[in-house]
Amino acid sequence: MKTIKDSVHDHIEVEGVARALLDTPEMQRLRHIKQLGTASLVYPSANHTRFEHSLGVYHNACEALDHLNVEGPRAEKVKAAALLHDVGHGPFSHNLEPLTHRRTGKYHDDVHELFERGDVSTVLRDHDIPPREVADLVAGDGRFGQLVSGELDVDRMDYLVRDAHHTGVPYGTIDHARLVRELTFQDGELVLAEGNVQTAESLLVARALMTPTVYNHHVTRISKAMLRRAGERLLDSTRHDAEDLRRMDDPGFLVALRRTEETAEVARRFDERDLYKRAVWAERANVPEHVLDIEHEDERGYELEIAERAGVDPDQVVLDVPGEPAMDESSTRVLVRGEARRLDQQSPLVEALQSAQLAQWRLGVYCPEAVTDQVGTAAARVLDLDIDGALVTEVRGLQGTLDQYGQ
Amino acid sequence: MKTIKDSVHDHIEVEGVARALLDTPEMQRLRHIKQLGTASLVYPSANHTRFEHSLGVYHNACEALDHLNVEGPRAEKVKAAALLHDVGHGPFSHNLEPLTHRRTGKYHDDVHELFERGDVSTVLRDHDIPPREVADLVAGDGRFGQLVSGELDVDRMDYLVRDAHHTGVPYGTIDHARLVRELTFQDGELVLAEGNVQTAESLLVARALMTPTVYNHHVTRISKAMLRRAGERLLDSTRHDAEDLRRMDDPGFLVALRRTEETAEVARRFDERDLYKRAVWAERANVPEHVLDIEHEDERGYELEIAERAGVDPDQVVLDVPGEPAMDESSTRVLVRGEARRLDQQSPLVEALQSAQLAQWRLGVYCPEAVTDQVGTAAARVLDLDIDGALVTEVRGLQGTLDQYGQ
Amino acid sequence: MKTIKDSVHDHIEVEGVARALLDTPEMQRLRHIKQLGTASLVYPSANHTRFEHSLGVYHNACEALDHLNVEGPRAEKVKAAALLHDVGHGPFSHNLEPLTHRRTGKYHDDVHELFERGDVSTVLRDHDIPPREVADLVAGDGRFGQLVSGELDVDRMDYLVRDAHHTGVPYGTIDHARLVRELTFQDGELVLAEGNVQTAESLLVARALMTPTVYNHHVTRISKAMLRRAGERLLDSTRHDAEDLRRMDDPGFLVALRRTEETAEVARRFDERDLYKRAVWAERANVPEHVLDIEHEDERGYELEIAERAGVDPDQVVLDVPGEPAMDESSTRVLVRGEARRLDQQSPLVEALQSAQLAQWRLGVYCPEAVTDQVGTAAARVLDLDIDGALVTEVRGLQGTLDQYGQ
Amino acid sequence: MKTIKDSVHDHIEVEGVARALLDTPEMQRLRHIKQLGTASLVYPSANHTRFEHSLGVYHNACEALDHLNVEGPRAEKVKAAALLHDVGHGPFSHNLEPLTHRRTGKYHDDVHELFERGDVSTVLRDHDIPPREVADLVAGDGRFGQLVSGELDVDRMDYLVRDAHHTGVPYGTIDHARLVRELTFQDGELVLAEGNVQTAESLLVARALMTPTVYNHHVTRISKAMLRRAGERLLDSTRHDAEDLRRMDDPGFLVALRRTEETAEVARRFDERDLYKRAVWAERANVPEHVLDIEHEDERGYELEIAERAGVDPDQVVLDVPGEPAMDESSTRVLVRGEARRLDQQSPLVEALQSAQLAQWRLGVYCPEAVTDQVGTAAARVLDLDIDGALVTEVRGLQGTLDQYGQ
Repeated sequence: MKTIKDSVHDHIEVEGVARALLDTPEMQRLRHIKQLGTASLVYPSANHTRFEHSLGVYHNACEALDHLNVEGPRAEKVKAAALLHDVGHGPFSHNLEPLTHRRTGKYHDDVHELFERGDVSTVLRDHDIPPREVADLVAGDGRFGQLVSGELDVDRMDYLVRDAHHTGVPYGTIDHARLVRELTFQDGELVLAEGNVQTAESLLVARALMTPTVYNHHVTRISKAMLRRAGERLLDSTRHDAEDLRRMDDPGFLVALRRTEETAEVARRFDERDLYKRAVWAERANVPEHVLDIEHEDERGYELEIAERAGVDPDQVVLDVPGEPAMDESSTRVLVRGEARRLDQQSPLVEALQSAQLAQWRLGVYCPEAVTDQVGTAAARVLDLDIDGALVTEVRGLQGTLDQYGQ
Repeated sequence: MKTIKDSVHDHIEVEGVARALLDTPEMQRLRHIKQLGTASLVYPSANHTRFEHSLGVYHNACEALDHLNVEGPRAEKVKAAALLHDVGHGPFSHNLEPLTHRRTGKYHDDVHELFERGDVSTVLRDHDIPPREVADLVAGDGRFGQLVSGELDVDRMDYLVRDAHHTGVPYGTIDHARLVRELTFQDGELVLAEGNVQTAESLLVARALMTPTVYNHHVTRISKAMLRRAGERLLDSTRHDAEDLRRMDDPGFLVALRRTEETAEVARRFDERDLYKRAVWAERANVPEHVLDIEHEDERGYELEIAERAGVDPDQVVLDVPGEPAMDESSTRVLVRGEARRLDQQSPLVEALQSAQLAQWRLGVYCPEAVTDQVGTAAARVLDLDIDGALVTEVRGLQGTLDQYGQ
Repeated sequence: MKTIKDSVHDHIEVEGVARALLDTPEMQRLRHIKQLGTASLVYPSANHTRFEHSLGVYHNACEALDHLNVEGPRAEKVKAAALLHDVGHGPFSHNLEPLTHRRTGKYHDDVHELFERGDVSTVLRDHDIPPREVADLVAGDGRFGQLVSGELDVDRMDYLVRDAHHTGVPYGTIDHARLVRELTFQDGELVLAEGNVQTAESLLVARALMTPTVYNHHVTRISKAMLRRAGERLLDSTRHDAEDLRRMDDPGFLVALRRTEETAEVARRFDERDLYKRAVWAERANVPEHVLDIEHEDERGYELEIAERAGVDPDQVVLDVPGEPAMDESSTRVLVRGEARRLDQQSPLVEALQSAQLAQWRLGVYCPEAVTDQVGTAAARVLDLDIDGALVTEVRGLQGTLDQYGQ
Repeated sequence: MKTIKDSVHDHIEVEGVARALLDTPEMQRLRHIKQLGTASLVYPSANHTRFEHSLGVYHNACEALDHLNVEGPRAEKVKAAALLHDVGHGPFSHNLEPLTHRRTGKYHDDVHELFERGDVSTVLRDHDIPPREVADLVAGDGRFGQLVSGELDVDRMDYLVRDAHHTGVPYGTIDHARLVRELTFQDGELVLAEGNVQTAESLLVARALMTPTVYNHHVTRISKAMLRRAGERLLDSTRHDAEDLRRMDDPGFLVALRRTEETAEVARRFDERDLYKRAVWAERANVPEHVLDIEHEDERGYELEIAERAGVDPDQVVLDVPGEPAMDESSTRVLVRGEARRLDQQSPLVEALQSAQLAQWRLGVYCPEAVTDQVGTAAARVLDLDIDGALVTEVRGLQGTLDQYGQ
């Protein structure tokens, strides 16, 4: 048994297959992928990695399985899945997913492929664990898949607390030790035990408060969108393909950007934190339907049109249209008088938080600070936004205030 | 200047009038009044007092005034009010308020009276501060009264964090340092600066999650209700009047109960944590209008009737009908594009949290464990509750589960 | 199983005999005895009790036994002892020990007596545990007695962290989770496993830093000494005997002081924190041998003589001569290359810390602020201290500075 | 003014010259240099950077200057120096210092050079601050240089706490807020105010406990020594010079290693955490004088000789001879009765901690796990160590145990 010191869970005991998996290159690579991607540009102490997070998720899984009285080979499988759940992540985690997984289309197909070969596969087989079954658990399939990847998974019970610890934003400080203890199965479904409506709500609320403050902070979003565009240029200009990209780590990706002529300027902007600013920051009500429904592949066309109308270099305009906010936790099940009820049927908070998230939704157009005026005006016209020039100006007026807690 | 070490704010610097006030018997008395009254019967480490909380509120006030650039005599007045805001509290804080303030009817009249005499008055006058003005601030009057006692007051910015620290329940872990920094005045009204809708929501949510988990935990409520009845017996059986009661501290009140024949049994139950249990725990929908509207003075009549029907000693039945849940924070004002908006107009969370609180509302009838059956049945009949015997039984069935996080 | 939320260990699971013991009046009484006695007069947030500390010690014992693979009846016994280890404490814990145990002379005789009768005895017997064996463990006897009361006991692994959490002084923040994991037995002796010299040193250092800052802060010592004298007057003036005193809790003792004419003034001083000040604060080198060797019973004689010479009321002089500083942890055993070595043989820190403690040793003479001058001069003469009038004045000169972190 | 959220100090307010400096490429580069170099290979959550640490040091400087009542241009200079104190660091901070600064010989010469050109210089001049003066402060010169770089500097008041927060090892949890408040000047010297011997000791002890547990953990040392050798190969095999090296960041250096044939294998070992193990781990008493006095430049010769005798590739042997442990804090000055005394004259702890550090001193020889036997035996002979073959074996026997808290 190995004991590892962790800033969140204090001591994590690693044994069995998990111990062997820890030493694989696939797991070690996660040391170089930050948990929060570009959020460290807003919160300078948020440099924690997918590696330590994976250990935390493994720890939570062990605790939960212990409370559920699950032992032996079945438990080993779940623990392996918990530890491995993020090995498929590309550089900057979710930020580049549209690129890294654009061929396969589905993240989980790729995980299956990854688990079938390499050291992870060898270690799993050495411990008589079929890789496919672990990949299924990571994909959320089956009774215990819910524990690894579902509304009540041990993943979010780690990341909320860890992100709070490292950013310094306290909103994610959930009672994870209680959550892990209150998990139980009812008719094959993972549910929270009696008396835990509040506990479920607290999880939901924590994520709802962390999202705009940390995960979707506008500086996080701007830098993420810049990286995504740069990644596309990289794929277009070099011999790197999506598969290559997927296997890079954060610094490897940045080095590739630096060394490619077409992306060197973005790399410099990253190195010096000389980021684009918002030219447009529009509420949902002001965005026409056809822009909301835009496909990722078509965004580039709009960018070119905006750049042309604004008279700026096409590389200097980035359009960022988020999808509709999801809220997985709304289908969390909690026992109420012996019956498993969906949280959104039980708690008025779910709907309110969904409304709040919609209200926080913003379409962004980003560009160098010097040209926000012309780009903002051009974008409003091209995207047919229901905002006039004044609003664009107002957006820029807000920069100062809203930037305050960024750096 | 004096520096005091605090478990929440680390170092608190006390100077000027505050330093002198600290040594008055009125302030020192708060050392013997627990911040959370009977909640330590649920959370054993929640033994923090009104004294340390008052220091914390004073500290927050200093920080806020510093950010608002308020100095000199005006600041001194507000600081004094912050430090003194709880000196009027009787034993077990809010738990006994209906008794301690039944003559005057209004808590704040009493504070005015208290500030006009005794050492507090002397110290204030020695520092050229009119006691009446400080009492007005404590009552929430005037521009700076909002800071001491309002929806955005420095009181709640301390107690949520402190209660979280000492109970171990993390829900109250708000970003109080940010809140204090973001306060500003607009047209004489205390508001949160631009970009803080989220910050305001987090305060609201923290209280909404702490309320059922800590402040209204059923064991807290049961013990509170038992104390209240015992306090009434004390007033009826002895020469103590409301004024006496108001000046007792927690242990002084318990000693009085022990030494009075009529209340000695309740005192023993407290000393040994041998508390009453729930005979009825009814949702709002099952309670008829006339019971919801019951006056505090009329509750005793119902208790006697229930006891008689159940065939138990009248002292063994306690009826607990909470008022409609309030949510002061809903009128918090936040700047949105330069305009001060009420939070309930801006955030869908307010209404949802209000619904959630209504859903958590419960009428309770408490009695010794041995007689919960007959008392429950009798109470259902006397109070005309829309629940049948089965439900009473179910309530008892829940005891085990729901008691889990109590002790 | 019952789960209790704790500010230090988060969730504590209580089951078996421990759960039943929790509800005994003997355990519940510990809710009203503060862990740090009068230290809350220095650190206002240090209101934690022997009750929550006992739960913490029980928790540590469970963790340690788990790592040592001890189960079944033997484990139950040790857990009971861990939970009960403080039930013999009188009011204000160690502060009044010279009084509460002056008849029996030995604290542990009294514990044996206590365990043989009352609810604790009944609960233990109901679980087939001989009370005598639990009392032996509390006294530190036998293999597992070392775990309950020894240099490496689970008691100090709780109190250091808990005292740090509640005072806000970080020095006690030891790595208790590591300590508990590293315990092992070698030839029947409890030792720390290989590679833990540092770990042992950290425990030693934590206590060495907490002692002067918290446990022996001069305000703690003054108030403790005042209480002790008041307790003696109480025993002399009323029908209370040591046995009565021993069964009181903190507020009960204070009420007794208030209601007794001879001690009412001290009670008032406590209530209003109007404490005595130092008239003398002398280093060890300046105190003659015969004063260092003074018996507790003879102190009163010196006080009377000092009072007479100073021309003040004999009740106004308190002499406080601490014993030689002990350092139990010095005999901690740690495995070094497979051999159990005493820490003081292995680490140069032990001797240094002992010297440091001797250097911090002070004899104190306390009295009301108005008479420190004459009492200081008189005491220097009566106690034959090697200090002149100037030094007494200097001591008073230091009051301001040294008091800073007290209140 | 800008407010930045920090995991340690919560909110850090940045204004004036500091705000402008924050945006220079020199400061932004520190985002990519880990505070603890290779320690994250032991403590996976220790990924904090020199950037956030620099902000913390700046924050401490602001607090200290505020308590010292220093304002205006003089304060601005000190604040700039605090923020900039680490801009001269090369990749992996101190780990590569012998290489990065081998030309200039002195770290601080390089800082002076750095401050004279580039954006830092421009920003300083724009704020009327002579770069040379700031560089002098960073070098510890002058009255306020002590605050930036001395025994009582604001640097260590940040890093101890930050390292504790991010590693999870609590030993560094000093009372930094108190330290910052207690600083004062006496005759031009920075000292701790009266009553702070304890406070000074706590700082000393914190570093003494963190050193072996974190800073000198054997895995940290092994990986550091491997990096150093690889850096030398890099300088020898490529056109990179010391100046280039000094301007790289952590990932840049690793990429350079990966891309150079001679160092690619070490880079792989780093990426996969396939580190060398200890072949020798010898106490000071067993090392002959001439080996203790070895110059850094001569180590390579010994390595070649050991490799030859052991019959292994010369690249596979790394010799690591640490210098004599320093203890800067020993000359800390504390006021005792108005006189500034050196801590080592006042506290017996200083000498004891120095002895303890000497006792922890170890010479290491590292190599791939498969050849530890032959390399250990060869090294013992070549270095004339007073250990026989048995001891080498024992060292390897300890690997398991001692590795426990590494990964």
